[in-house]
Amino acid sequence: MAQVIADRRDVEFVLHEQFEAGRLSRHKRYSEFNRKVMDMILSEARTLAVKEILPTLKTGDQTGCRYENGKVRVPPEFKRAWNLLIKGGWFAPCQDPEWGGQGIPHSLNVMAQNYLIGANLSLLMVAGLNNGAGQIVERFGSGRQKALYLEKLYTGQWGGTMVLTESECGSNLGDLSTSAVKNEDGTYSLTGNKIFISGGDQDMTDNIVHLVLARVAGAPPGSRGISLFIAPKFHVNEDGSLGEQNDIICTGIEEKMGLHGSPTCSMALGSRGKCIGTLLGEENKGLPMMFVMMNHARLMVGSQGLACASSAYLHAVNYARERIQGPLPSGRDKTSVAIINHPDVRRMLLTMKSHIEGMRSLLCYIADLEDQKIVSDDEAEKEKWQNLIDILTPVGKGYVTDRAVDVCNMAIQVFGGYGYTAEFPVEQIFRDVRITAIYEGTNGIQAMDLLDRKLLMKNNRLFFDLVDEIKKTITKAGQRDLLSPLAGMVETALDKLVQTARKMDQSLKGEAVLQAYGFASLFLEATGDVIMAWMLLWRAAVAEKKIETGVEGKEADFYDGQLKSADFFMRTHLPVTMGKMSSIMDLCSAAITISDTSFGGK
Amino acid sequence: MAQVIADRRDVEFVLHEQFEAGRLSRHKRYSEFNRKVMDMILSEARTLAVKEILPTLKTGDQTGCRYENGKVRVPPEFKRAWNLLIKGGWFAPCQDPEWGGQGIPHSLNVMAQNYLIGANLSLLMVAGLNNGAGQIVERFGSGRQKALYLEKLYTGQWGGTMVLTESECGSNLGDLSTSAVKNEDGTYSLTGNKIFISGGDQDMTDNIVHLVLARVAGAPPGSRGISLFIAPKFHVNEDGSLGEQNDIICTGIEEKMGLHGSPTCSMALGSRGKCIGTLLGEENKGLPMMFVMMNHARLMVGSQGLACASSAYLHAVNYARERIQGPLPSGRDKTSVAIINHPDVRRMLLTMKSHIEGMRSLLCYIADLEDQKIVSDDEAEKEKWQNLIDILTPVGKGYVTDRAVDVCNMAIQVFGGYGYTAEFPVEQIFRDVRITAIYEGTNGIQAMDLLDRKLLMKNNRLFFDLVDEIKKTITKAGQRDLLSPLAGMVETALDKLVQTARKMDQSLKGEAVLQAYGFASLFLEATGDVIMAWMLLWRAAVAEKKIETGVEGKEADFYDGQLKSADFFMRTHLPVTMGKMSSIMDLCSAAITISDTSFGGK
Repeated sequence: MAQVIADRRDVEFVLHEQFEAGRLSRHKRYSEFNRKVMDMILSEARTLAVKEILPTLKTGDQTGCRYENGKVRVPPEFKRAWNLLIKGGWFAPCQDPEWGGQGIPHSLNVMAQNYLIGANLSLLMVAGLNNGAGQIVERFGSGRQKALYLEKLYTGQWGGTMVLTESECGSNLGDLSTSAVKNEDGTYSLTGNKIFISGGDQDMTDNIVHLVLARVAGAPPGSRGISLFIAPKFHVNEDGSLGEQNDIICTGIEEKMGLHGSPTCSMALGSRGKCIGTLLGEENKGLPMMFVMMNHARLMVGSQGLACASSAYLHAVNYARERIQGPLPSGRDKTSVAIINHPDVRRMLLTMKSHIEGMRSLLCYIADLEDQKIVSDDEAEKEKWQNLIDILTPVGKGYVTDRAVDVCNMAIQVFGGYGYTAEFPVEQIFRDVRITAIYEGTNGIQAMDLLDRKLLMKNNRLFFDLVDEIKKTITKAGQRDLLSPLAGMVETALDKLVQTARKMDQSLKGEAVLQAYGFASLFLEATGDVIMAWMLLWRAAVAEKKIETGVEGKEADFYDGQLKSADFFMRTHLPVTMGKMSSIMDLCSAAITISDTSFGGK
Repeated sequence: MAQVIADRRDVEFVLHEQFEAGRLSRHKRYSEFNRKVMDMILSEARTLAVKEILPTLKTGDQTGCRYENGKVRVPPEFKRAWNLLIKGGWFAPCQDPEWGGQGIPHSLNVMAQNYLIGANLSLLMVAGLNNGAGQIVERFGSGRQKALYLEKLYTGQWGGTMVLTESECGSNLGDLSTSAVKNEDGTYSLTGNKIFISGGDQDMTDNIVHLVLARVAGAPPGSRGISLFIAPKFHVNEDGSLGEQNDIICTGIEEKMGLHGSPTCSMALGSRGKCIGTLLGEENKGLPMMFVMMNHARLMVGSQGLACASSAYLHAVNYARERIQGPLPSGRDKTSVAIINHPDVRRMLLTMKSHIEGMRSLLCYIADLEDQKIVSDDEAEKEKWQNLIDILTPVGKGYVTDRAVDVCNMAIQVFGGYGYTAEFPVEQIFRDVRITAIYEGTNGIQAMDLLDRKLLMKNNRLFFDLVDEIKKTITKAGQRDLLSPLAGMVETALDKLVQTARKMDQSLKGEAVLQAYGFASLFLEATGDVIMAWMLLWRAAVAEKKIETGVEGKEADFYDGQLKSADFFMRTHLPVTMGKMSSIMDLCSAAITISDTSFGGK
């Protein structure tokens, strides 16, 4: 049967052949995760995704969430799927088993998530919040807070949320106005209104653990006066049983373009003066704590983008194989052929394929860095892996989700008119994936994060650590006759990226600072393109060695497909990237100097 | 009040300052259309659009069309709006008043359509079919057919449709199987099933005139055996009154991503053996006749793209002016500012603005060519204008709608999370506009039309006619100090486009023919980019002269905005276009040579 979420062979290739994840089992922490066990876990995830979760995708979109009598009902099928995710241990797979996690490697998890998320983004998006919320509680919570909430979060017994955004305060959290007043018993009374709270209410779990950003009375203004609180939907007694309902209620849900199965809630805190929360960590340190979770969440959003793109692509490939329409544009034979034979369709499919492969490798690479960091004893090495994770996070979120939107858009185009109808899933996937470029920091915010934080940090050290890693792959591939031309193209692009980064660095420190910010998004795009090229060159190098050893049939096609992706990307996409970098270097000031009135519309 | 459909000043600029449409009134055919009259007509269109049609936009999306008991009901508000379009004469504004048209210039109409379509694409899409259907009847119909149907179509009293697509036959109409058998009385009995018929049924008009493609028994196979018929929903008596219902019925409507107010119908013809039609023109000449309508329809779809993009842009600008969020990224002032001040938002807005301006100018230019052709007595000149129309049509449809989708996507991004909700109209506009890249020939089909028909026609004569026109603008602008650098950039890009076209021309005639087709879409994109640059340079040249004469206040800002658009596009987008052309010249074969299995998914 045709696959419809993620190409199994490619997932295995990335995990085992590109990143050799099995080598982790040499380390005590991951000793039980040899290749066989990993494959078993992957296989479980795939079966769960395809057999149990995927059937909820369309009904989730069409039924959607309902808000009635102050409560949210998710699509009825979701509860069963949620419970199967609990059973499979998919709420915090990489976390400490002591607290309900499964302790599996991050690289394995990111590949498993490709299947799970690809089966139903709405459901997995809500489920995915537990992990990040749990991590904050694990890292910053008191013993009591951990005892009460952590296992419930990591196992999925209860839901978890991030209660951040307010109507006047989205990208800039420093402005938030929800207030916290300390009570005599050490708890805090919270008052305010929040919006866009994913999973703010739902009927899949008995309780929901809300992590709330608020400002303690008298705190400094801006982002330095923000604290983080736990405010559960139902208070929890010492024995773990549920007590009274807390005064944090959902007042409505958003009507959205997609993601209909995920309730996006408006929340009123303390409208009856009785929203009680407990402080996490110290007062006024809320934002940095939240950022721990946000970095995790940003990579999760990258995974969401990949999963949607990957599924949309496979739907398009399958359709292209079956749909007969028109003869080939050349030649005299007027027999209609499957559209996979039409050059323009092949161009779309290979564009999608090469990007998805690059993105899958990138996200697995970042996860692998996390694993390497965990198993390493060498502090310098750990720092280097963290540097790479830090600089790659905005790419893994911003670039990946932008391209994911493009890929899903292209999938619709492969289907033609059918792609616009609900008869095929690509239009839903496109509506669903669109949010990934917005939430957890819009992609404009990601571009700024790359430019003015990650690029500048430690005197550009993060950036040059990345350049060094890319060069390693170029050097290796450059030694192989077949790959040397492609390696040369990546090298040329990398050299230009370094120049571009230097130009941006200088501009940020000089007069042209606003201009530089005006090119932040294009800089993220160019950086991401070069990273795609790197990942595809790396894949091609692995494939070329396999081909050399002699492979046949479907395997030969798979490996040749790796060479084709790389060839296509380097020769068709990288020249455009070169153009993008020329644009950046020119640093046109028009977008900054144009007057507001000139934008028209008044 | 902020404008939300099309910037009035820009519409006037294009019509009167860039194309000096008033000069048409020197010719007898358009003698009554001096500037004052044109402005009055534009103003009427704008008022109708803003006051009467725009209020139906959201309800049209949310109510949508219903299919009940074999009949389609459009959103109830649509009928009133349709009648106002009748009253305003907006169904066939450029057509002969003898048959119910208004005889207005095409350039004026395309600007008026910007307002009307931008107010509600669903409604205007259905209404827009009348004009094309009418043109076929006018051009190919018998005296009797014209007497029965033409005025009803041109005035909007009845609906008109194009009944082409079948489930196995979309892009390649040659394969269609609906059959026609000639009856003794000279009529034909039609039998078959059609899908994706816009306006195939609706309850806004008493009758619907269906133009049906079918194959007469014994006709040659493929596209040379297709005939065109009129099959009205209700037969029409000689006195114009309605007779019996015809056996052409709607069997269902599509559930779609957007365009919910436009019923996309499945139609059964002759399911009771009684679908009677009359032949239009001669047997087996149906397809060329249909293409007359399709070329008109394709430019109309370009207008649809522009209208959506233009509206989405203005919503984004208005929001950006009002939404306060975060301080500027540079400097010490931590006061939150309107997001229109943020460099990344300005980048998005100027990207959108420059593309919309280029597209508006292009569509007005094509319409103006049509007007020039009409008023010209010189056959060589007429041919030249037609050449330009022919080569620009796939750009006006394919490039414009692709960019329109991008612009609407970007508008959502400006809104952040709010853009994903139904609280603001941009998510609907995005869902609506997506179809424009698909219907009336997918944009892949447009790319092929440019490559293997328009480029090759008359030994590349169409292409070089276009190049000559672009050069005229470059030469003029090159003589002005301020514009000379920008003119140089357009010239460089044009030179490379010529080389690219030569490469494509050679490839089509040689071994690399499939590769060339694989780059058809990128060639369309690069061609479109260069045309945008041309139009923006032209606009800048007009603006620069006005600035020289001395302008102040809002007017100065408007003209300076023209220089900024050109500067931004040439320096930020054209370098990327150069990269695209490098890609094309390299003509990578990977997309053609990759094996089907290598695409994976099996």
